[in-house]
Amino acid sequence: MKVIGGGITAPKGFFAASVSCGIKKSGRNDLALLTSELPAVTAGVFTTNRFKSGSLILTEGRLKKGVSQALIVNSGNANCCVGAKELKDAVSITDSLSERLMLPKELILIASTGVIGKALPVDKIRKALLNLVKDLKETNSSKFARAIMTTDTVPKEVSVIEKVGGKQIRIGGAAKGSGMICPNMATMLAFFTTDASIETNTLRQAFRECVANSFNRITVDGDMSTNDASLIFANGLAGNKLIRKGSRDYFKFLGGLDFVAKTLARKIVMDGEGATKFIEVLVRGAEDEGKAEKIARRIAGSNLVKTMIAGGDPNWGRIAASIGSSGADIKKNRVHIYLGRHLVMKNGAGTDVSRKTLVNLLKNKELRIIIDLRSGTKTSWLWTCDLTEEYVRINAEYET
Amino acid sequence: MKVIGGGITAPKGFFAASVSCGIKKSGRNDLALLTSELPAVTAGVFTTNRFKSGSLILTEGRLKKGVSQALIVNSGNANCCVGAKELKDAVSITDSLSERLMLPKELILIASTGVIGKALPVDKIRKALLNLVKDLKETNSSKFARAIMTTDTVPKEVSVIEKVGGKQIRIGGAAKGSGMICPNMATMLAFFTTDASIETNTLRQAFRECVANSFNRITVDGDMSTNDASLIFANGLAGNKLIRKGSRDYFKFLGGLDFVAKTLARKIVMDGEGATKFIEVLVRGAEDEGKAEKIARRIAGSNLVKTMIAGGDPNWGRIAASIGSSGADIKKNRVHIYLGRHLVMKNGAGTDVSRKTLVNLLKNKELRIIIDLRSGTKTSWLWTCDLTEEYVRINAEYET
Repeated sequence: MKVIGGGITAPKGFFAASVSCGIKKSGRNDLALLTSELPAVTAGVFTTNRFKSGSLILTEGRLKKGVSQALIVNSGNANCCVGAKELKDAVSITDSLSERLMLPKELILIASTGVIGKALPVDKIRKALLNLVKDLKETNSSKFARAIMTTDTVPKEVSVIEKVGGKQIRIGGAAKGSGMICPNMATMLAFFTTDASIETNTLRQAFRECVANSFNRITVDGDMSTNDASLIFANGLAGNKLIRKGSRDYFKFLGGLDFVAKTLARKIVMDGEGATKFIEVLVRGAEDEGKAEKIARRIAGSNLVKTMIAGGDPNWGRIAASIGSSGADIKKNRVHIYLGRHLVMKNGAGTDVSRKTLVNLLKNKELRIIIDLRSGTKTSWLWTCDLTEEYVRINAEYET
Repeated sequence: MKVIGGGITAPKGFFAASVSCGIKKSGRNDLALLTSELPAVTAGVFTTNRFKSGSLILTEGRLKKGVSQALIVNSGNANCCVGAKELKDAVSITDSLSERLMLPKELILIASTGVIGKALPVDKIRKALLNLVKDLKETNSSKFARAIMTTDTVPKEVSVIEKVGGKQIRIGGAAKGSGMICPNMATMLAFFTTDASIETNTLRQAFRECVANSFNRITVDGDMSTNDASLIFANGLAGNKLIRKGSRDYFKFLGGLDFVAKTLARKIVMDGEGATKFIEVLVRGAEDEGKAEKIARRIAGSNLVKTMIAGGDPNWGRIAASIGSSGADIKKNRVHIYLGRHLVMKNGAGTDVSRKTLVNLLKNKELRIIIDLRSGTKTSWLWTCDLTEEYVRINAEYET
């Protein structure tokens, strides 16, 4: 596997575009389009939020057949909590786009991200469709990645090439999200393309697995959006032998997909609102994975732990307090805590690692927190970032 | 019932004291003492954190018999995550105090609050006991309330008088806590005194009920401490007829206790680290209380909701997103959201309340968020505060 340029248009037969239709007050591009030369096998993972956006409801419905050919994304407006109009607007926009693209309506998907509770400016969007379609190019992946941004500070994309079934196949991805990121769902928005030829249910399984090990393992602020969606499009233009479940090719494909997803997930955490540090929380030595995960989520979700790391203060007692309040049944006198490679708590009691050593450790951009429960063999992990004054500033001043 | 002065020394026969023994670098008082003229019926509620402080382990053990006569509290050091030494130190300190007070060891309780993972300076504390005992006065409640503070900005105390069983009885309380405050446990530290005569199990039941409706209903940052403890001492010196379960006197006593506990809980939220606004979240119209509570806790725990209120931005979509991600099964098209008295979301869709009206509403120091699920008759509520840059500053710069 090799990292290549090109993002979501790196795989053969994918085109991207973006324009400004006037949703974002800044005048930045807020309408993005992705199309495939041929209908693509498509899989998706969506938010479990009960106030799911009408855009996603339409898209989820159309994905039942597992095939699509175009995706339109608007940023700056979530098309959510607007009532019956949400679904109507999503239908109206995709209908207009299907005419412009001369494709069946059922093959057009839509996703939205932005402020909740405001009706989509449908007329503005429809008027912009002609220019949007005209902008479609095989080299527009970065333009696409930029147009789906809201509070993100950098566009997020990556692509790889891998030999599968005797042919070179490519996988590309673009994502957005820097706040409202919480585990147990897809990230805000993450879109994947591949020219691999793969069977529908196989793609679905691979995608579910890879989302569980990437986007569902990151948390910025513990808040879950109404609009999170991950989609993958596979158009088969690489001409490889059809990838089937459990085959050697399947695992090679999964490896590539996993790399792309983890890279994007990491970029999202690194761009967490106000974040200055990347934190990996690893819990090991548990009797079962559920317990390890419960503790990892509690630590990664603790404002006290995250502000302490922002301040560069090695106050590991806050980590102990998080473990103890996670609800997991632990043997307090067996628990070790490591900051980086330093054992700071041994068998439930502080060690004599010097404060200076730890203060220096916390000056790094990345921190690994390891909890060893020493009660079993299971592990779990999460990625998160620190909580800074800048996070509060961004979210207190966010314009509705 | 009438509010009176005097705090925890308002009830007859209670004495308080405080000195500085050198735990706090600032030189402020960090050792506090409460005693009763006679042994007092005592009840307690403690943190469920698995890394419970050795001080609390000793106190909980001694409370099994339901009687005590003195309480020593140190601030600045949690006596937690230090290993076997925790319990040993708590025993050693209370043993020395029992000699100074000439009281049986079993009647001495201890609580600690502050940094985790550092051994208590036992010698410093023991040396300070003579001066601490000398300082005992019937008028020292505020001195006591001040000495138990850590990041609190104001001392928190209140007292009331009420006619019960033909006699005037008094209830006083002092509390500390402004970070690491989370529901489902007592607050950091809350101590109650009363001169009412009440049967042990009756006091236990009343206290559990009142903690559940006050300290377990507040959340500042969702983090649960290793040292939270609530204690109540009833020495019977008012001479009222013994209060028994279910009697009219019981409910009058409970009313007074509830007022004292709610007042202290409210003071803790108002003094939440960096808080500028008091928020009440009320969820009604639920099929069961558990569902209403789940939603209330999710909203009160959302960084996005709390930063939005700090910023004075009426972005109620974040409240909808919290409801939707709470895990509670709701009927999205029935849900109403009110900010203050303004219906901002009706049947799952935004209304036309003007932004200006809501911006003005958010200028108030107090905000009520009401969620009506319109699916039943059960309710739940929580108190919380906004999340400001100051919270991050306090917790990033907290000295360990």
